[in-house]
Amino acid sequence: MSTVYTRPLARLVEQFQRLPGIGPKTAQRLALHVIKRPESEVKALAQALLDAKQQVGLCSICFHLSADPICDICRTPSRDESLICVVADSRDVIAIEKTREYRGKYHVLGGLISPMDGITPDQLQIQPLIHRASQATVQEVILAINPSVEGETTTLYLAHLLNPFVNVTRIAFGLPMGGDLEYADEVTLARALEGRQRVQ
Amino acid sequence: MSTVYTRPLARLVEQFQRLPGIGPKTAQRLALHVIKRPESEVKALAQALLDAKQQVGLCSICFHLSADPICDICRTPSRDESLICVVADSRDVIAIEKTREYRGKYHVLGGLISPMDGITPDQLQIQPLIHRASQATVQEVILAINPSVEGETTTLYLAHLLNPFVNVTRIAFGLPMGGDLEYADEVTLARALEGRQRVQ
Repeated sequence: MSTVYTRPLARLVEQFQRLPGIGPKTAQRLALHVIKRPESEVKALAQALLDAKQQVGLCSICFHLSADPICDICRTPSRDESLICVVADSRDVIAIEKTREYRGKYHVLGGLISPMDGITPDQLQIQPLIHRASQATVQEVILAINPSVEGETTTLYLAHLLNPFVNVTRIAFGLPMGGDLEYADEVTLARALEGRQRVQ
Repeated sequence: MSTVYTRPLARLVEQFQRLPGIGPKTAQRLALHVIKRPESEVKALAQALLDAKQQVGLCSICFHLSADPICDICRTPSRDESLICVVADSRDVIAIEKTREYRGKYHVLGGLISPMDGITPDQLQIQPLIHRASQATVQEVILAINPSVEGETTTLYLAHLLNPFVNVTRIAFGLPMGGDLEYADEVTLARALEGRQRVQ
């Protein structure tokens, strides 16, 4: 590699390759693109990287990514305080926010219980969740956690802990919209049947 | 967007999206990844961007990307000075270098003649090429230019200018290795027939 690229270019290609989903070909394309852009654009990208890393921390209430001590969602008075949606990761908050359907608050666990990976409940933001859920204003906690082995474990664990304080629900699993019964896998179909609802 | 991401994160997502082939989903994935990496790694990426932009220029002989006034390839004494391979872009040099088959020198035009896009021969590094090709040490100029409309125009233009000084050849076009006659397009097949060679 070092003979193919001039040194600073080789370093940039290598840095791009460390990013997820960026292989050698894409890293090369990105590096050659960057070199041809005006210096101001490259500086803007470099600065955005540093700023994001240095300024973005976690909300002290819900642990969502935030540049302020308390995130925009927790600070918005119009959001329903009686509802807390529990997710594994900040990217799940972003995904749900993009639906524009949910008007409650969130709680980001920061991962899922996974004894195999050495992630135990005390490494997740579970104590602060119990503290929040036990407050009188909270009526319902929605568990919006992936239906993986770790997700199921975490969901059951949380349901057990939270049920004494609050109504605990979980998001529905079933056939995706636009999906086809014929091509759905058995597990999805079984969950869809299990989660059937009365048609009024 | 601005309500979904905290400000510095939104700016980083936006900056990533300016890169070629990076859509909103990938930009988000990259930005969320960056935020979770140690600060030293993020600084290394930011610095690599700035260094590559500030330190990489063009070789004064062959116009390949180089951090030094004369690139590694032009400086290597073991490379065959009698052979110049002409390409449109530095990425073509990188592609040919990766084959490890070529031991001559290069000349990067910096584009292709394209009257439609307002690119005329005087905007490309053609004068320096003629100067190099007219020197006694140079025996052969290989044109390694894409078989597009602009590429054909540039190839014919260069062949016309260079033929008085030097042997001019061009790379072969034909069926790709592992390709299938049955599925080759007609133009490729016609070029493959036209470029047939004697089997010894």
